[in-house]
Formats: sequence, structure tokens, C-alpha cells
Amino acid sequence: MKFEVKVRVWLKPSVFDPQGRAVENALHTLGYGDVDRVRVGKYMELAVEAADRAEAEAKVAEMCERVLCNPVVETYDFTLAAAGAAKAGDGQ
Amino acid sequence: MKFEVKVRVWLKPSVFDPQGRAVENALHTLGYGDVDRVRVGKYMELAVEAADRAEAEAKVAEMCERVLCNPVVETYDFTLAAAGAAKAGDGQ
Repeated sequence: MKFEVKVRVWLKPSVFDPQGRAVENALHTLGYGDVDRVRVGKYMELAVEAADRAEAEAKVAEMCERVLCNPVVETYDFTLAAAGAAKAGDGQ
Repeated sequence: MKFEVKVRVWLKPSVFDPQGRAVENALHTLGYGDVDRVRVGKYMELAVEAADRAEAEAKVAEMCERVLCNPVVETYDFTLAAAGAAKAGDGQ
């Protein structure tokens, strides 16, 4: 069974985010002075084959912990849907 | 009124994604052979001040078009919630 996965990875609140600061400064420079607390992270989409939903979730969690996210400074979450059930036009 | 915004930016399906390919290869190398179609994009969180929700949405859409996303090769979407209403622990 194929599952479509959407993963978000972002820096923990206590970690300084230079990329977020740079984007915030750019927005301010371009006139969007009323924006703050900009944080930049990663968004990933992937498809995974698994026997069932539980196995797919376990696989994705393991991939996040080992590869996609650095648990020391980052946090992650993910959503998972049986292939074909995910919203059309969502990056696929 | 303060709004908490979550933005996803990802490459259009027709655009080659070298970063996604690199992550996919890494996952395969580490034994996750049943993963494919890995696409990597940006996930951003920010707070914006606006008179009401409609104004906030218009501002964020404009920021996405001008700064946060390259409309030629990328697609974006965003969710917006009044400050304090967003899920706790979501990168804030």
C-alpha cells in the first residue's frame, strides 16, 4: 500500500534562526514592517510503501529521526494519507 | 490584530528537484528503499499585524508572490490563524 507523506521540519524555538532573520529583514526592507517572528524550516513530500498505516507511520517517524530532521535542534511533524486520497495539486 | 501564518513553498511538479533527489538517495542508502517521489521545499512561520483576516490574507499572499516564493518555479499555500488560536508547540 502506498502512502503520501507531508513532513514539516523546523528549528526549536530556543535555536537562533539566521535564515528566518534574513527573510524578516528582507520583508521589512520591502515595506512589510508589520511582520515578525519569521522562522524558516523544511517542507518535504514523499511516497512510502507500507503494509498498513501503522507501519507507514513508524517508518516515517524513524526516517525523520535519522535522516530528515536533526532532533538536537529541530522539531518535526508529518501527515500521512493513502495514495490518491491526498488533496489534488498538493505538490504532486 | 496579530495573525500567525504557516507558509509552505514547494517546487512545481515539472521542475527537477536536486535536493529531493539527494534526500531520496540518502534514504535509499540507509535502507529505506520503499520511499520515492521525495520533494523538498520551504516551510515558514511568521506573525503579521492586520486589521482583519481579509487584510492579513492579502498581505501574506502578496509577500508570498514577491518575496517568499518564486512563482516561476514554485507553488505556495498558507494557513492563517488569529494569534493564540494556533496549535500550541507549533514552532512558536
